[in-house]
Amino acid sequence: MPKSSARVGVNGFGVIGKRVAEAITKQKDMKLVGVSDVVGDYRVKLGQNKGFEIYASIPDKLPDMKKSGVEVAGTLEDLLRKIDVIIDCTPAGLGAKNKVLYDKVGVKSIFQGGEKHDLTGSSFVAQCNFEENLNRPATRVVSCNTTGICRTVGTLFNTIGVKKARVVLFRRGTDPWESHKAVLPKLNITTMAAKGPFNLGHLHFAMVQLKGEVEKKDVLKALRSAPRLAPVRNSDGVDSMNAVAEMMRDLGRPRADMWEVAYWEDILDVTDGEASLVYQVHNESVVVPENVDAVRALTGLETEGRRSISKTNEALGISSKFL
Amino acid sequence: MPKSSARVGVNGFGVIGKRVAEAITKQKDMKLVGVSDVVGDYRVKLGQNKGFEIYASIPDKLPDMKKSGVEVAGTLEDLLRKIDVIIDCTPAGLGAKNKVLYDKVGVKSIFQGGEKHDLTGSSFVAQCNFEENLNRPATRVVSCNTTGICRTVGTLFNTIGVKKARVVLFRRGTDPWESHKAVLPKLNITTMAAKGPFNLGHLHFAMVQLKGEVEKKDVLKALRSAPRLAPVRNSDGVDSMNAVAEMMRDLGRPRADMWEVAYWEDILDVTDGEASLVYQVHNESVVVPENVDAVRALTGLETEGRRSISKTNEALGISSKFL
Amino acid sequence: MPKSSARVGVNGFGVIGKRVAEAITKQKDMKLVGVSDVVGDYRVKLGQNKGFEIYASIPDKLPDMKKSGVEVAGTLEDLLRKIDVIIDCTPAGLGAKNKVLYDKVGVKSIFQGGEKHDLTGSSFVAQCNFEENLNRPATRVVSCNTTGICRTVGTLFNTIGVKKARVVLFRRGTDPWESHKAVLPKLNITTMAAKGPFNLGHLHFAMVQLKGEVEKKDVLKALRSAPRLAPVRNSDGVDSMNAVAEMMRDLGRPRADMWEVAYWEDILDVTDGEASLVYQVHNESVVVPENVDAVRALTGLETEGRRSISKTNEALGISSKFL
Amino acid sequence: MPKSSARVGVNGFGVIGKRVAEAITKQKDMKLVGVSDVVGDYRVKLGQNKGFEIYASIPDKLPDMKKSGVEVAGTLEDLLRKIDVIIDCTPAGLGAKNKVLYDKVGVKSIFQGGEKHDLTGSSFVAQCNFEENLNRPATRVVSCNTTGICRTVGTLFNTIGVKKARVVLFRRGTDPWESHKAVLPKLNITTMAAKGPFNLGHLHFAMVQLKGEVEKKDVLKALRSAPRLAPVRNSDGVDSMNAVAEMMRDLGRPRADMWEVAYWEDILDVTDGEASLVYQVHNESVVVPENVDAVRALTGLETEGRRSISKTNEALGISSKFL
Repeated sequence: MPKSSARVGVNGFGVIGKRVAEAITKQKDMKLVGVSDVVGDYRVKLGQNKGFEIYASIPDKLPDMKKSGVEVAGTLEDLLRKIDVIIDCTPAGLGAKNKVLYDKVGVKSIFQGGEKHDLTGSSFVAQCNFEENLNRPATRVVSCNTTGICRTVGTLFNTIGVKKARVVLFRRGTDPWESHKAVLPKLNITTMAAKGPFNLGHLHFAMVQLKGEVEKKDVLKALRSAPRLAPVRNSDGVDSMNAVAEMMRDLGRPRADMWEVAYWEDILDVTDGEASLVYQVHNESVVVPENVDAVRALTGLETEGRRSISKTNEALGISSKFL
Repeated sequence: MPKSSARVGVNGFGVIGKRVAEAITKQKDMKLVGVSDVVGDYRVKLGQNKGFEIYASIPDKLPDMKKSGVEVAGTLEDLLRKIDVIIDCTPAGLGAKNKVLYDKVGVKSIFQGGEKHDLTGSSFVAQCNFEENLNRPATRVVSCNTTGICRTVGTLFNTIGVKKARVVLFRRGTDPWESHKAVLPKLNITTMAAKGPFNLGHLHFAMVQLKGEVEKKDVLKALRSAPRLAPVRNSDGVDSMNAVAEMMRDLGRPRADMWEVAYWEDILDVTDGEASLVYQVHNESVVVPENVDAVRALTGLETEGRRSISKTNEALGISSKFL
Repeated sequence: MPKSSARVGVNGFGVIGKRVAEAITKQKDMKLVGVSDVVGDYRVKLGQNKGFEIYASIPDKLPDMKKSGVEVAGTLEDLLRKIDVIIDCTPAGLGAKNKVLYDKVGVKSIFQGGEKHDLTGSSFVAQCNFEENLNRPATRVVSCNTTGICRTVGTLFNTIGVKKARVVLFRRGTDPWESHKAVLPKLNITTMAAKGPFNLGHLHFAMVQLKGEVEKKDVLKALRSAPRLAPVRNSDGVDSMNAVAEMMRDLGRPRADMWEVAYWEDILDVTDGEASLVYQVHNESVVVPENVDAVRALTGLETEGRRSISKTNEALGISSKFL
Repeated sequence: MPKSSARVGVNGFGVIGKRVAEAITKQKDMKLVGVSDVVGDYRVKLGQNKGFEIYASIPDKLPDMKKSGVEVAGTLEDLLRKIDVIIDCTPAGLGAKNKVLYDKVGVKSIFQGGEKHDLTGSSFVAQCNFEENLNRPATRVVSCNTTGICRTVGTLFNTIGVKKARVVLFRRGTDPWESHKAVLPKLNITTMAAKGPFNLGHLHFAMVQLKGEVEKKDVLKALRSAPRLAPVRNSDGVDSMNAVAEMMRDLGRPRADMWEVAYWEDILDVTDGEASLVYQVHNESVVVPENVDAVRALTGLETEGRRSISKTNEALGISSKFL
C-alpha cells in the first residue's frame, strides 16, 4: 500500500532552503518535521517564529545557536531519525559529505544543482523525468538555469521536435550552471553563458530550429499547454526584468517569488522554422516546486509526474497566466 | 455626528498609489471607490483583477485604456463625484493642476511629498501633527526621507529634547527630498544628502546632540515607545540594507514592504550626550500608513493621532518588533 | 590633384564628440578647427584648456557659455565656414535638423549611429565599405554594436563565408542599436538584444554557421588578420568585462578607451562548422577610428580603406595585440 | 652624507601595487628594481611589457609563473637583496608574515592601511607626520579613507582649529577602514561608515565645528593652500561621483586616477562656525603619492615633508586645480 504522507526535513535554511521549507508546509501529503542550519541569525529566528523546529547541522555549532536565542531541538542526526526524506539545501559542494550521514541513517535525500549529477546518479525536472526517479534513494534537482531550459526548449523538444537549439543565458555570478544533458540527453543544444549583475533573475535567449513547418501559433500552443510557464507582454508594459519582478509583487507572491518561467509572448518570433524566444528565470524560487515534486517521486507518494505537478501547483498557487 | 466611514479614491496607480489603494481596502472605516490612471498596463490590469474600479485620469486616454483591455468605469471627474477624499499619487509636480479639479468638485485631497508645502498650506506626519490637520480641506504627506527624520529625530525631539541634530541621508536619485521644517519647525537640524544607487531604500546617519545627561538606555526607551519604528541588529546577521529587505520577504510582507523605519539597535551609540543612529527607510512604502491616517484627519473619522495610528497599524500589520 | 589635408569641426562635445575631436588632432592629414556645444561645463572648459576653439551650436546659448567662463569663438555657422567636414556628435535625433545648416553652408557631414540611414543614404564601417563612401557629401558611422558585428561576423562573412549568423547582444539602455543591413546587406543574420546595466561596454555572443569544413584555426586566422580586432584570454585572467576595462587602464589608454573589439580567443569554439564567439565592444570609443576614416573617405584624402585604416591605427595606437 | 637615490621594490602587483610601481619610476631620486607577485596573469605580463623585472613572492609559484609566459628574475628574497625599501601591497593581513622576511634581509618596509598600526608602530600621512617617520625601519601608509580625512579635516585642525568633527563616509565593501587616531591623535572626531556599491571612489560628508569666528572664505583659504586637495563645482556640471571620474578621464590621467581629494567648493557651507563639506576620495590611487613620500621618509632622501610632497606632486602631475 502506498504511503499517504511523507515526513520531510530541510538541511540548510538559506535562500533555497527557507523557500522549500515553507512550500512543504503547504502540501497536504507532507509534513515538515524540522529544518537544520549552523547559525542562529534572523533567518533562523524568523523560521522558528513560524513554528519550524530548528536543528543544528553541525553538533559543535549547537551551543552558539542556543546562545543567540534559538531553541534548538537537537542535531541534524536527530532530525534525520524522524523523517523519510531530507532536502539538502546547503552550499554547493557540501552534498557529498552530507550524503554519507543521510545514507548512514537510511534517509532518502534530495540535492540541489550545485552538486554533481554523479552524487546521486540521477537528476530531476518534474515535467521531464519524474517517473525515472520513482522510489529512488536519492536525486538531484537541477540548477535554475537548466530548469528554465527544460521547461522551454524541453517542451518544444517533446512536442514539436527540435533540430538544434542555441541558448545564451545571463546569470548571476554566484549561481551554478551545468549542462542540461542529465535530463534531456538527446537534445542537440549549444549554450553560451555570461555572469553579470543580475539580481532579479536570469535572462535566456533561445534560438530553436524546429522540426516540420511550424508557425508562431504552433509554438505558442505548445508553450501554453506546458506546466510552469507563463507569458508576459511588452504591450502590457512588461518591458524589463524589473517589470517582471514588480508584477510578482503586485500579484502578492510571497517574497515576490516567481516559480514559473516567464516568456515574452509578443517578442517571440518564428521565421523559417526557427523560434527566437526570450524568457526570465527567477533563480531563487524556480526550483522550489521541483523539490516538492522530487519528494513525491522518491517516496512514491505519487506515481505520475503530471499529477504531482498539479498538486504542487495548486498548493503553491502556480499559474500559467499572470494576467 | 461624526462620519463612520470615508469613501476614498486614488489618482495615480504607480509605486505609491497601488500600495495606498490596497492599504485603504484593509481599513474598516474606509471604502476604496476606485483608482484612476492614464494607461492600461499590467499594473492597472492587476488592480482590476483585484476588484478595483478603474477610471481615466485624462478623458482623452480613456479609449486607449479600453483598447488595452481594461474596463474603464469613467473619468476621474466621475470618480470624484462618488468620494469624500482623493489621494493624489500622480508624478511630482502635477498636484497643482489636479487640485483645481478636486476643489471644483469639492472633494478633500491628500498630496505626496513631491508637491510643495504651499499647495495645501499644510504638511502631515501622523505622530507629529495629526491634530493640526483635523477637518482641513487638503494636506500633503511629506516625503519618505522627511517621514524617516520625523519618526526618529522627531521622537527624540519630543521626548528627550534635542539641542542640534545632523543627518546625512543617502537616497535614490529620483525620489524627492525636502526640508522637515513643515512638520518640525523648531528642530535645529543640519542635513546633507547624496543621490546614489539605492534601490532597496534610503539610509540615514543621524548624529543628535541631546538635552540633559542621557545614556543609551534612555534613547532606546524613547525609540521603543514611538510608533512605526522597529529595531534590527547586526548581531542577528542584519548587517546591510539587503538583509533588511530580505527580512521583510521572510516576514511575508506584501511586496516585501517595510512601513516602519528600521534602526540598528546595536550600532546605536550615545557618548557625551550625543546619539549616533543609523536607520533605513523604505521609500516605496514608508508613507503608506501616513496616507491612511491623513484620510482620518481630513474627514474627522478620528480625532486623535494616536488612535488613528493604532487602527492603521493593526489593519496593516505594522509592528514595533520584527523579531 | 587630391587634397593633402582636411579642416575638421566637431559639433557636440559629449561622450563621442570629445573623443573624436582628440583623435582628429592626432592625424597628420587633418586639422581640428574647432568644436561646438551648447553649454560651458567642465567638459568644454577642459577642451578649451587643451587648446580647442569653442563655438556655440545654438546662437542663443552663446552668452551663457561666455558667462560660465568659456571664450567662445563664434557660432556653429562661423565654424562651418572654416572647415571641409563637420562631424556631428549631437544627441540622437538632432541630425536631420543640423544637416539643413551643414548643407546650406556646403560642408560635408558625418553623423553617428543614432541617426537613421536615410538621413545620408549611406552608412559607414571602414573595413566594409570605405570605397563606396568616397567623395560623398555625407555619411553615417554606424552604432557601436553594428560596428562590433561588422568587424567580427563581417570578417568571417568576407573571408570564410557565412551561411547564417545569430548574435545576442547586451547593451546599455541608452545606446542606440540598429540593423547591420546598411553595411552588410547580404549577411543572413538574426540578432536578439537586451538592455542592461552594462557601464563598461557591450557584450556580444555570436553563433556563426560557416561555409566549408573549417576548424578553429581557420577562424582564428581570419580574425587575427582583420583590423581593429584583438584577442583576450581567460587563461591570462581576463575573465570578465571588468578585466578587459582594467587591461585598458594598465595599457595606459587615454580614458581607458578600447577602440578595438576584444574577442575571447580561448573561449572561441568551432564545432560542426559553427563558431561560438564572445566579444566585448566599448560603446564610448569603438566608433572613434571609424569617424576618422570617414573624414578621409568623404574628402578623398585617401582612396583605399586599408590605407586609411593603417594611418588611423598608427596615429591612435590601435593594435591587434594587447599582450 | 645623505643618500641621493633609493632602490625600491614592490611586493604585490595588484590595484595599489601596480600604481605605486609606476609612480616610483617617475621619481628622479628612486629606482624601481623589481616587482613581485604570485601569478603570471595579464597584469603581470603588462608590467613586464613596461620593462619591470618580475619576481615570485612565493618560491613555489615561480614555475607556474614561468609556465604562463612570464620571465621570472628570481624570488622575492632575491629582490630584497637588491633594494633599500620594499613597498608591501599584498592583500590585507599578510603584512605580519611578510615583515619577518623583510626584517631578516634587513630591508626597510612600507605597508598599507589594511595592516594594523601595531605592525610598524608608526603610521604615515605625508602632510601630517612625515618628520616623525624619518629614518624609521618601517611604517604604514593609512587607508584611503583615513588619508581623505587627514587631508581635509586634518588641514582645518592644523590651520583654523577644530572643536569637534563628524564624518559620515560611504565606502566600498572590500576596502579597509580604520581610525585616524594614528596620525591625528588629538582630533575630536566621530565617524560613521557604511559599505555600498561605490566603484568610483568613496564619498565623505564632514560636519566640522571650527574654533573662532570663521566664515566660508576662511575655510576655503585653508583648503586651497593645503596639498593634494582640489576643488570641483556643481556649477561646472560636476554634480556626481561619476562626473568627477569622467573629469579625470578628460584630464588624461593615467587609469583615470585621482591622487587628490576633490571637494565641492560650491556645496561647502559654513554657518555658525560649522563647516559642511563633501568630498570624494579615489580609493585606488589616493595613497599612491603617500607611498612615494614614505620612501623618502624612511630612507632620509628628504628631511622635510613639504619638500617631498612637492617632488612627488611634480613628478606625478598632482595639482590643486583641475580646471
